[in-house]
Amino acid sequence: MPAAHRRPTARRQTVMVPGLVLGIDPGLQRTGYALVLPREGPREPRLLEAGVIRLRSQQPLAERLAELEVGLQSLMRTFRPAALACEELYAHYRHPRTAILMAHARGVVLLQAARAGLEIIPLAATHVKKLLTGSGRATKRQVQLAVTATFNLPTVPEPDDVADAMAIALSGVRYREAHTTAAADRRRRVVP
Amino acid sequence: MPAAHRRPTARRQTVMVPGLVLGIDPGLQRTGYALVLPREGPREPRLLEAGVIRLRSQQPLAERLAELEVGLQSLMRTFRPAALACEELYAHYRHPRTAILMAHARGVVLLQAARAGLEIIPLAATHVKKLLTGSGRATKRQVQLAVTATFNLPTVPEPDDVADAMAIALSGVRYREAHTTAAADRRRRVVP
Repeated sequence: MPAAHRRPTARRQTVMVPGLVLGIDPGLQRTGYALVLPREGPREPRLLEAGVIRLRSQQPLAERLAELEVGLQSLMRTFRPAALACEELYAHYRHPRTAILMAHARGVVLLQAARAGLEIIPLAATHVKKLLTGSGRATKRQVQLAVTATFNLPTVPEPDDVADAMAIALSGVRYREAHTTAAADRRRRVVP
Repeated sequence: MPAAHRRPTARRQTVMVPGLVLGIDPGLQRTGYALVLPREGPREPRLLEAGVIRLRSQQPLAERLAELEVGLQSLMRTFRPAALACEELYAHYRHPRTAILMAHARGVVLLQAARAGLEIIPLAATHVKKLLTGSGRATKRQVQLAVTATFNLPTVPEPDDVADAMAIALSGVRYREAHTTAAADRRRRVVP
């Protein structure tokens, strides 16, 4: 449903921003999220909101996934982002149990994005590092400091899930800036 | 919503069976499903329906998960099973990429089950083998033959996803038969 035609609801604040990117760091205890606005003329990308969706860790997996769904749906209804950024999981091969568990949550995240018609931005973990620090081998701390500086935050955000979600959302915004032009170029080449 | 209070819909056949188990073999190309009725007096567990939900493999992952959701919701609305049986994924450590991809689908399956209020039956792969053949080390073929014999099928069902879902659903029924009594026993001990 196009944003302009959506009926306003009494209970929810509604923000409509073109190009708003929702970054998600999926987890089964806490799922970090961040909403980042794209660059506007000379203004750098700006952080709109960030936080965590807390899941009750004593609940069975299926219940936690249902809680995650409710949290994500609430975010998407409130902010109506244009795109979702979420890291690939292949970097976690060395901890297959963790990666397999996280993939359940990631599946629920992607499902909500598909349902809401969001563009999905593919991001490898090294890609996030490279986009934010210039190096695909940056440490977690270096990425956090880059995010803190870009958004002019007084301290590094906590918990890590929030800082990670900010990094992912910011990378999503940068990826879109880079690829929108590249995609347009490709189209020009294909149809001369 | 209790089955008896559900309004019948015009477009769907509605079957109401206490103890009906939906077995799912999640996959991103085909998700196998089977609906198995519990033992009734001398009558062995009976196969009600089985098949596959086909996902379009050329679609992005998020779209396939949305297709899977639609297929599962349709099954659950039509048959309203009491429980969902779905294998754990930890057996697939040796193929982490496959396990991570499958876990996305499994997350969507568990989410639908939680939303529909289904009991979720935990089943390790070795558990399925043991319940159906008596040995946790049985081959895939031995499990398929056990399923074919139990349900009096003329041939081994194809594709494998269907046979696997049948094995999972049948194990779910057997697991419930075994554990309902055990759980009742435990309750008696806790509250003397």
